[in-house]
Amino acid sequence: MNKGVLLVISGPSGAGKGTVCQNLCQQNPNLYCSISATTRPPRQGERDQVNYYFLSEQKFRDFIEQGAFLEWARVYGNYYGTLQQQVEKKLNEGFDVILEIDTQGAKQIRQNSREAIFIFLLPPSMEELWNRIQGRGTDGPEVIKERFAAAYLELQEIWDYDYAVFNENVPNAVKNIEAIILAEKCRIKKDRDILSRFLEEGDKGDLSLHR
Amino acid sequence: MNKGVLLVISGPSGAGKGTVCQNLCQQNPNLYCSISATTRPPRQGERDQVNYYFLSEQKFRDFIEQGAFLEWARVYGNYYGTLQQQVEKKLNEGFDVILEIDTQGAKQIRQNSREAIFIFLLPPSMEELWNRIQGRGTDGPEVIKERFAAAYLELQEIWDYDYAVFNENVPNAVKNIEAIILAEKCRIKKDRDILSRFLEEGDKGDLSLHR
Repeated sequence: MNKGVLLVISGPSGAGKGTVCQNLCQQNPNLYCSISATTRPPRQGERDQVNYYFLSEQKFRDFIEQGAFLEWARVYGNYYGTLQQQVEKKLNEGFDVILEIDTQGAKQIRQNSREAIFIFLLPPSMEELWNRIQGRGTDGPEVIKERFAAAYLELQEIWDYDYAVFNENVPNAVKNIEAIILAEKCRIKKDRDILSRFLEEGDKGDLSLHR
Repeated sequence: MNKGVLLVISGPSGAGKGTVCQNLCQQNPNLYCSISATTRPPRQGERDQVNYYFLSEQKFRDFIEQGAFLEWARVYGNYYGTLQQQVEKKLNEGFDVILEIDTQGAKQIRQNSREAIFIFLLPPSMEELWNRIQGRGTDGPEVIKERFAAAYLELQEIWDYDYAVFNENVPNAVKNIEAIILAEKCRIKKDRDILSRFLEEGDKGDLSLHR
């Protein structure tokens, strides 16, 4: 059983990360969307170990101290994070694992994992990004501008990523990410162990051994 | 129109390069299998500009002097080579171009092209490679051993390649190479120009311009 690929997917708010990741995992039984841990209380209908791992603040802090998180952050007073052990378990079972996280979280993953592949999801155009951010609710122009500025700042982080996928439509974005996963499984550096083993089969001194 | 991707496919004799490349190009109208130039006389049924560009030795040598080849070699007294202009033309028209060449040719491409992607096609196992090489004809054991040794030497070049694809069966090998092409089109370094243009759209000082 080969270890799976760890994919980090980021992108500005409004790029459509949630929908794309959901579709990816629904259509590929070998793909697992990582579940975050959080201290925020469950909302109506949310279930532990399905939507989040709901943890007490004490438990979360213990995990931080133990270095149990691949990445974590505190947002509006609540903690959010990705438990390394959960991810490793799935990878070792052969699943490819998707982490849908922001660029700050991705930075932490870059420090904590050598294997991860970083994908930046983009809206089809800045115009479209603007429309999507604005179309979200009934907020005033200042709030929207602020949100746009934040998205614009996130975009600047793209150069640290391996791949850029334009989300012109969901099926196409899904197709591109599936291709990236397949291609990454063929990359030479990833395969060094498998390849070495393969080549060694032929390295038995006497070539006639092969018959 | 985006420029196409240049793919170099190598692999030991018996890995099935020919069949895989043929299937790739038949199934993907956007993919173009490069036609080599040669000084060897056409065999029965071979047509100029379809199977090869058939050139006189004088013409071929002129092209060498002009630096017109991406790679060339002399094999058993005949010249073979890939004309840079033919490849560039197709790439600029938006086609992805496949060069099926040996590891020596690939080395030359590495020096002459910054953009090329290098794929190494492997048989499913060394045992299978041995069977395929042996199964080719009615040659004596010494000839077969020599051929196996040559294939084994070619295998050592794999570490200079970007991707390794195991040809367990043709449809699967084709699928993996198609994924590699798609993924390479998403790679950040490739997209730097497109991405820069995309980001600059948002870099007009006054964000409200976007409405």
